[in-house]
Amino acid sequence: MSLLVVGSIAFDSIQTPYGQVEEILGGSATFFSVTASWFTPVRVVAVVGDDFGEEHFRVFRERCIDTQGVERVPGRTFRWKGEYVGDMNQAHTLDTQLNVFEKFVPKIPASYLETEFLFLGNIDPVLQLNVRRALPKIRASALDTMNYWIKGMPEELAKVLASVEILVINEGEARMLSGHNNLKKAAESIRKLGPRFVVIKRGEHGATLFSPESIFTAPAYLLDEVHDPTGAGDTFAGGFIGHLARTGDLSDANLRRAVVYGSVMGSFAVEEFGLRRLLRLTPGEIEARYREIKSLTHFDA
Amino acid sequence: MSLLVVGSIAFDSIQTPYGQVEEILGGSATFFSVTASWFTPVRVVAVVGDDFGEEHFRVFRERCIDTQGVERVPGRTFRWKGEYVGDMNQAHTLDTQLNVFEKFVPKIPASYLETEFLFLGNIDPVLQLNVRRALPKIRASALDTMNYWIKGMPEELAKVLASVEILVINEGEARMLSGHNNLKKAAESIRKLGPRFVVIKRGEHGATLFSPESIFTAPAYLLDEVHDPTGAGDTFAGGFIGHLARTGDLSDANLRRAVVYGSVMGSFAVEEFGLRRLLRLTPGEIEARYREIKSLTHFDA
Repeated sequence: MSLLVVGSIAFDSIQTPYGQVEEILGGSATFFSVTASWFTPVRVVAVVGDDFGEEHFRVFRERCIDTQGVERVPGRTFRWKGEYVGDMNQAHTLDTQLNVFEKFVPKIPASYLETEFLFLGNIDPVLQLNVRRALPKIRASALDTMNYWIKGMPEELAKVLASVEILVINEGEARMLSGHNNLKKAAESIRKLGPRFVVIKRGEHGATLFSPESIFTAPAYLLDEVHDPTGAGDTFAGGFIGHLARTGDLSDANLRRAVVYGSVMGSFAVEEFGLRRLLRLTPGEIEARYREIKSLTHFDA
Repeated sequence: MSLLVVGSIAFDSIQTPYGQVEEILGGSATFFSVTASWFTPVRVVAVVGDDFGEEHFRVFRERCIDTQGVERVPGRTFRWKGEYVGDMNQAHTLDTQLNVFEKFVPKIPASYLETEFLFLGNIDPVLQLNVRRALPKIRASALDTMNYWIKGMPEELAKVLASVEILVINEGEARMLSGHNNLKKAAESIRKLGPRFVVIKRGEHGATLFSPESIFTAPAYLLDEVHDPTGAGDTFAGGFIGHLARTGDLSDANLRRAVVYGSVMGSFAVEEFGLRRLLRLTPGEIEARYREIKSLTHFDA
């Protein structure tokens, strides 16, 4: 089934202990859509500036991602500059230039209206809600958000939370949103705000799914080297929702598989800078790593 | 098979958001032995002062723990005072009085010499090595240590590391000991120092076993409330090594089961202050929680 993502497209400049890159293609909608394109047809709604060229659109097109909803306006594309040090669990933002993203108003092309799955990337909750309302035929929608909106726009965020089936959120932000330090209590309290399913991303510690029937924890795949954590969260979401859209199955057993695909894709993302590793994957590599996570967690009852 | 633990017996005063207690029975040898007693016969080598009374010895005796190796000397028993705040992942030590523990020299009773499994709790590595050498018939021994010994006595620690089969260690201390931030590299480098098996405890994120054949990750059981994290690490070790000693089986599949039993026992420990929950367990509760962790991690291949 088709999957629509609304989010950012950016040029990222990144420094890690493994090297540095200048103005490479990034942003939540980019990481999400490239990842999900390994599972299902993907459509993007985002905004770019007039410095966003044919070579950048080609990246999406080569993954058969529909970019009809990527609006190109006068000005510069969103830019982010950051670095990772030490255990690389936290990005240190050095510079953010919102540029054309500052006045982003998502516009849904008519050809997107029949989309079945929706991912609302981490943007202003008012925009997220408008997109959700513009797509009444959506079968399941998932939301990401961050501390900035949790603190700054709690009422608007509450409205969009009440309109989605799934929340995908970081551990620290789940604590902030719920006011609970305990993860189980945090998830239970968030589920009362609307989403039937809450997926808490725990970085190198994996991810935990809280659903009406059960709790499921998947570990992160252990890598020898993490070269660049940028986009890992959106890549997780791309694998998770990509698998749900591919199968159209929202059962507890399938949501568990989806969390593992999220973990698989996140582990590929961080192996190299930016999109590099995600662009040259093979379906066989994805399935092999899925089986490796199975073996990483298997024990006899 | 029989299991011997060498470590501390202490009186702990603890404050957490759920309450406070004064001078309750604690210490690494205590938490370990009470936990492991649910799996196999346990023997303790430790030291206490003359303030350690019959009512304290009774706690061990009621769990059929052999205390012949608990030496009672003039003076006060080891005391520790600490508090937990916020997310309770870190104890803040308010006071430490080593008392009779300062001059602890482990003495192995003759009746202990045939012991098959050994846990060297977190004490001076010179003492750990002496105990290891005094027990040439040991089938498998496991070691715990901490930043204090890693920084202060690296050569002595290296000797004892080379003499054990298993290291059970915290995430942060594994990084410090190996000099690697990456957990996989940290464990591989520690395995080169001696232990065939390295178990890295990750607190609320579970535990990871690095063995010659594979890597295995078990999650922590998610609780609604953590009342007192004191002793969780030694309780993990008690379940882990307790299961190994009960079965006498050092296969990869059985080590995985042992890690899950460690996680099970750690989750019980933190539900109430001190030893309370561990003392009134039932074998049925232990098995039920083992199955719950199975369901928490299960997904279809």
